[in-house]
Order: sequence, then C-alpha cells, then structure tokens
Amino acid sequence: MHKSRLAVAVIDCQGGDLGEHATFWASALGRVAEDRPKDPKYRDLIGPDSEMRLLVQSVDHGPRVHLDIETDDISAEVARLTRLGAREVGKCKTWVVMEAPSGHRFCVVGPQRPDFEKNANVWED
Amino acid sequence: MHKSRLAVAVIDCQGGDLGEHATFWASALGRVAEDRPKDPKYRDLIGPDSEMRLLVQSVDHGPRVHLDIETDDISAEVARLTRLGAREVGKCKTWVVMEAPSGHRFCVVGPQRPDFEKNANVWED
Repeated sequence: MHKSRLAVAVIDCQGGDLGEHATFWASALGRVAEDRPKDPKYRDLIGPDSEMRLLVQSVDHGPRVHLDIETDDISAEVARLTRLGAREVGKCKTWVVMEAPSGHRFCVVGPQRPDFEKNANVWED
Repeated sequence: MHKSRLAVAVIDCQGGDLGEHATFWASALGRVAEDRPKDPKYRDLIGPDSEMRLLVQSVDHGPRVHLDIETDDISAEVARLTRLGAREVGKCKTWVVMEAPSGHRFCVVGPQRPDFEKNANVWED
C-alpha cells in the first residue's frame, strides 16, 4: 500500500529575472514569494496550507507549467503510473521525471503538503 | 473591491483520444473523469471540493498545462493583472486570455470553486 496526490504546480520560467517572475506570480495569485537561499533556481509562492503548493523555477526550456505528484513511496508510485501508460524520463536528485501519454512531463516527489497523510489517495499495490 | 484566486489547472492535450487522456490523468491523480455532453472538448477531473479544479481540454497547440484565475469581476481583475505586467491576449466566450511577463498564458474566469466567496483574495480597486 502507498499513497499519492497532486501536490504542486511548478511555473517553469526561461530567462528574465526569476525574482521578478516570482513577484508577478505571487502578486497575481495573492501569495508571498520566498527565496531559497541554498537553491537560487527556485522561489516558493507561499499560500494557505489547504491549497496546492506553487513554485517558480528557472529552466533552460521554454515557459511551461508542470505538475508534481507527491507520494510516500516513489518507486511504487512510478510503477503505478507506468502501468497507467506513463514512461519514466529520468531521475533528478530525489525525484523522478515522467511523461504522460498526453505528452506532458510531470514529476513524482516526496510528500510536500502538511495534510498529505490524512488526505492523499491510498493505492493497494 | 473585487476578489480572485487560483482556481483551475487545465491540462491541454493535442491529438489522441481525449477520453483516454482524461482516464490517464484521473487515474494518476485519484479523480473521476466526467464528460460534458454539450462540450466534447472538455473533461472534468472531479476531486474534493477543497482542491483545485482540474480539466482536460482538447487543443490545437502542443501539450501544455495552463492556470485559470477565478474572479467575481473579470474586467477589474484583468485591469489589476495588467498593472502587474500581464497583457491581454484575447477574449473567449466568458473568459479572458492573458500572458504573464514570464510568457505563460493563463485565463481569467468567473468563480469556479464552491468556497470562492469565503476564501478568495480581496483586492481594493
């Protein structure tokens, strides 16, 4: 048995000033942009705990929004998504990049939101 | 005064069978795909009221995820977002398509989620 859930929308930004992009998106969505001192490629857009997490990320590819699925068992979740038709694209640090049959890239990551244990979907492996 | 909030992530799918794309995403995210009999270009991915709405949409452009901002006053919200640096791209039926300074397209739409009145951000115009 493992759990998973949609957790994060990542706003991938190419070029420009990441701080300015984060300020725009935070202001647009009523959130607060926070730096990560050890990871300058990211800004968190802090909002209510009950809402999806949002990040702004500096990337080399064109502007895109991608979704992250949070799980307490990355390999079991990757196997489940593979059975549904997704394919594994690669591993990055602690997460796995996958591609849906619809062509969308998404990531499988560890638990992100405070209510994960209580509200995530439960899958019988 | 008006209100707005991030409301929906739309999974834009190019080609293939929209029903199959919706089935994949519903299964991946633990939701239920629902047809719209009068609007075959969309499938709703039904989940808990407390979560972001998710749609799968058939489009002519490449696969993409875009965000929708819900508001009780579309023209006031478009004006607010324009002041923040976004530009209006066009109008579609009841919503407005905009582009962020980061190059991401997004839509400004009417209220979507049941707790909009209670939990949306309030802006003094």
